[in-house]
Amino acid sequence: MSLLSQTLNQIKPLDKAAVSAAKQRLDNLIKPIGSLGRLEEIAWRWAGITGNIKNKSVKKSIVIMCADNGLYEEGFCAAGQEVTAQQTANFSRGICGVSVLARQTGAALTVVDIGIKTQVDSREVIVKKLMNGTNNIRKGPAMTRLCAIRSIEAGIEITDMLAADGVDMIGVGEMGIGNTTTSAAVLSVLTGSSVEAVTGRGAGADNMQLEQKKRTIKDAIALNQPVSEDVVDVLSKVGGLDICGMCGVFLGAAKHRIPVLIDGFISAVAALCAYELNSDAVNFMFPSHGSYEIGMKTAMERLGLKPMLDLDMRLGEGSGCALGMQIMDAAAALMNDMATFQEAMVTKEGLEGKWPQN
Amino acid sequence: MSLLSQTLNQIKPLDKAAVSAAKQRLDNLIKPIGSLGRLEEIAWRWAGITGNIKNKSVKKSIVIMCADNGLYEEGFCAAGQEVTAQQTANFSRGICGVSVLARQTGAALTVVDIGIKTQVDSREVIVKKLMNGTNNIRKGPAMTRLCAIRSIEAGIEITDMLAADGVDMIGVGEMGIGNTTTSAAVLSVLTGSSVEAVTGRGAGADNMQLEQKKRTIKDAIALNQPVSEDVVDVLSKVGGLDICGMCGVFLGAAKHRIPVLIDGFISAVAALCAYELNSDAVNFMFPSHGSYEIGMKTAMERLGLKPMLDLDMRLGEGSGCALGMQIMDAAAALMNDMATFQEAMVTKEGLEGKWPQN
Repeated sequence: MSLLSQTLNQIKPLDKAAVSAAKQRLDNLIKPIGSLGRLEEIAWRWAGITGNIKNKSVKKSIVIMCADNGLYEEGFCAAGQEVTAQQTANFSRGICGVSVLARQTGAALTVVDIGIKTQVDSREVIVKKLMNGTNNIRKGPAMTRLCAIRSIEAGIEITDMLAADGVDMIGVGEMGIGNTTTSAAVLSVLTGSSVEAVTGRGAGADNMQLEQKKRTIKDAIALNQPVSEDVVDVLSKVGGLDICGMCGVFLGAAKHRIPVLIDGFISAVAALCAYELNSDAVNFMFPSHGSYEIGMKTAMERLGLKPMLDLDMRLGEGSGCALGMQIMDAAAALMNDMATFQEAMVTKEGLEGKWPQN
Repeated sequence: MSLLSQTLNQIKPLDKAAVSAAKQRLDNLIKPIGSLGRLEEIAWRWAGITGNIKNKSVKKSIVIMCADNGLYEEGFCAAGQEVTAQQTANFSRGICGVSVLARQTGAALTVVDIGIKTQVDSREVIVKKLMNGTNNIRKGPAMTRLCAIRSIEAGIEITDMLAADGVDMIGVGEMGIGNTTTSAAVLSVLTGSSVEAVTGRGAGADNMQLEQKKRTIKDAIALNQPVSEDVVDVLSKVGGLDICGMCGVFLGAAKHRIPVLIDGFISAVAALCAYELNSDAVNFMFPSHGSYEIGMKTAMERLGLKPMLDLDMRLGEGSGCALGMQIMDAAAALMNDMATFQEAMVTKEGLEGKWPQN
């Protein structure tokens, strides 16, 4: 059996007993029932993932999948293609957005070249590439079906490595000029949403570039005829190597029962691909921020998730994951360190029925 | 001149030169223009507050204004009035929601009894009270005009103390059974919004309690006839001692040019009162989370602010401020530690005009 099939079989639902015990403790903490909002959901889902009511992350890593896209030659991307390789090298130099935020939250970076066009000059980058960038989806499929599967599996292998290394919280980011285009194409096919409804300006497309972007997506879908029920087909025809690798990380995190954070639009589309391959994978996902990119809402609705942060960010790189990890830690601290009514030794007579309770 | 008048005169606008220099640096960091979203706004506003492009908080405190409300006797509050005093004592014991979150973010708590009905059994609590709880606003004004002014001034005095102690970031929270009712009353009068539009369930009111709550607010406004253009009149007639004290903290923080975080609904209403007294005060305010309480949106719109976090929280206590402080620190770290294109030594030839720039 292939690593992908094997992984899909190994993803199991949340531990119901742990979820239920976690909810019971949350309802007994010295606060009105439910008043910590979605911090409570984070805490009980985390319990369902590990089987323990109390959790604490001691080793975090943000995986950044970096790749180039053949559609760059269409000429509408706002940034130069060489930026992919340059930023990939910069991540480990500690000077990019995600580098700074990861340092603040105590997360390591796992930078992966999953298909950059050129060779990256950095020994910090893990190379797992089957192609030097995809083919232009306006002229044909981005890659073969086998290449898509192998790239998803590369992402799974990254999580195998991280899990073996004791990592207990993962973030999923990316770098790749042109990847809001491929993400919008994949999202449109998977959800049946119109290209207009899910295509935004990415790094900074102007009106003309935006129109070219939409035209390219429509042409690519018309030409390649991806089968919406077959995620791998969609990824291979109109997707990207980065999205494949990220999809693999989401699946691998679910297999290893490690909480995994979604960054922005591209990360959310990869998460949706993982969900379509095994719907239980969504239980392990925690969306960090609601991206400025318009397709984000569609992806979140399909996943049934709601981001923690609302900051109009659109940097990518996994930057939102770093912020979201702090919220995850906060949710865990509340579960672990707040007192229950019993622990606070507040007399039952003093509070029962007076503070809103179940 | 009274401390309040003096403080209102001492609040100055943002430092325009610093704001402009900060924006210039942000636009030169190695990222697409504007891609850090509202983290960038946090960074340039902070620069405008201190006059320095790079900022870093080294001493944080969350002020929790605690008071009781006479309207409790109307009988619709979901929690018992004794909870105000009990939780006020619990804050410093490290076991409440805000205690846990403040510890995680490295913030101290400044707990103030600004009008609890009973005496609180804790030496950690600063006592600054003119009344043991307000009068029932359904039967008359909450307090005298002088008491409202003195309670606002008590909040200002707290910031004088914090500023002298080197605190460089302040959060504003509260504890007080019945204070979503007084907040909704104040907000309705100040904004002209209907009572229905700004009154929510607070700690957990059921349908009947919610109707009683709205009726009480309508009756209180009809009886006391607060003058909407006179914030102190509104606060004294249908407000609370906690809201007055919090309003004073917002004003004092602006006077001392210290960034100040808004927590949830009650904190936002107090911030709005400060804004109505001196509109420049809003430049020093950073809203942390969008509360579950329905009036929050109205208050934010009036202030022209947008919260960072979307977590459906409704705990109060300043809990959201603790989370928001981490986002503030993240924004500062990005400004301080990300490289500019020049610093990254990316050749101009390599990037100019290829990554979206001004």
